[in-house]
Amino acid sequence: MEKLTVVKIGGNVIDNPVDFEVFLTDFSAIDGCKILVHGGGKIASDLLAELGIESKLVQGRRITDVKSLKIVTMVYAGLINKSIVAKLQSYNCNAIGLSGADGNLIRALKRPIHIDPLSGGELDYGFVGDLYEGSVNSKALFELLNSGFIPVFSAITHDGNGQLLNTNADTVSSVISTSMVNYFDTSLIYCLEKPGVLSDFEDESSVIRQINMGKYQELTQSGQIRNGMIPKLVNAFDALNKGLKEVYIGKADALPLLKEQNFGTRLILE
Amino acid sequence: MEKLTVVKIGGNVIDNPVDFEVFLTDFSAIDGCKILVHGGGKIASDLLAELGIESKLVQGRRITDVKSLKIVTMVYAGLINKSIVAKLQSYNCNAIGLSGADGNLIRALKRPIHIDPLSGGELDYGFVGDLYEGSVNSKALFELLNSGFIPVFSAITHDGNGQLLNTNADTVSSVISTSMVNYFDTSLIYCLEKPGVLSDFEDESSVIRQINMGKYQELTQSGQIRNGMIPKLVNAFDALNKGLKEVYIGKADALPLLKEQNFGTRLILE
Repeated sequence: MEKLTVVKIGGNVIDNPVDFEVFLTDFSAIDGCKILVHGGGKIASDLLAELGIESKLVQGRRITDVKSLKIVTMVYAGLINKSIVAKLQSYNCNAIGLSGADGNLIRALKRPIHIDPLSGGELDYGFVGDLYEGSVNSKALFELLNSGFIPVFSAITHDGNGQLLNTNADTVSSVISTSMVNYFDTSLIYCLEKPGVLSDFEDESSVIRQINMGKYQELTQSGQIRNGMIPKLVNAFDALNKGLKEVYIGKADALPLLKEQNFGTRLILE
Repeated sequence: MEKLTVVKIGGNVIDNPVDFEVFLTDFSAIDGCKILVHGGGKIASDLLAELGIESKLVQGRRITDVKSLKIVTMVYAGLINKSIVAKLQSYNCNAIGLSGADGNLIRALKRPIHIDPLSGGELDYGFVGDLYEGSVNSKALFELLNSGFIPVFSAITHDGNGQLLNTNADTVSSVISTSMVNYFDTSLIYCLEKPGVLSDFEDESSVIRQINMGKYQELTQSGQIRNGMIPKLVNAFDALNKGLKEVYIGKADALPLLKEQNFGTRLILE
């Protein structure tokens, strides 16, 4: 099977123009079929602040009311997405910028109102979309890849009934990856600020080169893996269980090392 | 040859949610291959005002400085484009939202600094793109249409060197149309506030049903066609000369009449 590389890039790299330009050059140099999924960065929060709209985050997730949804759609699916595409095109990388609504590529379900475990009250995330098995129109995505396009996704999805939804970009990238395993030998790359999964949280040189399921359970039980990394790893092993070949976690500026399998931490099933 | 309908919709319809919803339903009901090109409406100007950025228009064209380019990219290529796509998807119309940067579909040249005929000084439109013969990647656009996608274009293009450019949506729609004449029997539909070209500017019932080149010259010489309509007609006859089958000019809410060739004014060469 042909190889597909799905790269997720977070806001911290997007916010730094120099790092971002280097990252996009490195991304465009990846061989074979590839997909970029990008987060939002500070621009959306800055614009919300400038317009006097309060940014509400609960457990790291933005509460997306009608006004916030407009802003994140503008910033993520408009400004950031199209700026990335124009840059990639200048590197001869035939990028096509997409939201989940485009080509009905990613459907989501509006998150139901939760009961907040802390207050016991209702917790409404607003226009936030959760993905499910079958969210991704993998056939249509395959056809775009097959036509030579490099899809660049913002994490805006839709419900199929005309409603746009704000979705977690980590989840978008892992669900896209697992949906393509019947078409491609698929790898997922998370680009973070950290150089990988560290055995010593304080020491950036302590990157663990490879983690399989056994090692993962061991590291979790010993408490070596910190809070922030746990959801990424849960996500990653879930994706591996669904047929993904490998997941990498590392720092954006090390992306060229991917070629020699020397990028950050490699996660595999066995 | 198969039929292709290119519809251009202006800001006035976008600004009215009820009219817009009706328009999108009507658009989705058009048979065969189709493309939608949309303008911006008031939303960009409102947002610019809210952020304290002055909107500068010269001869109806926005002066696009760095900040304005960011805003129009957000609003046109993000908010408006994705809202349209999500709505069309809910009508089972497989829309894909695009800027000219996506898939390198439309390249433009940054408009050179003009000498202002009035003041004699330099006139810099900023990040405004002008289209040229060969601007549209017609092969790639044909392939998207052939794969069953309905392209929805905002009028943001790029220069191929990483720079996004703000482009006139009327021009985008006519250049897209003429670029597709080797693949399709192509019609271009301009949706305006007026029901068509009027023989009496004051009387909305005085729509001229059909205008050919001879009639057009006659109407222009007699002064019956007013200023606002002249550039549209120049554009239209230019497109007809480049192989377009027909151009229609009419009011958005009359779009269903297109089927019985009874929509607004039909422009043909002979």
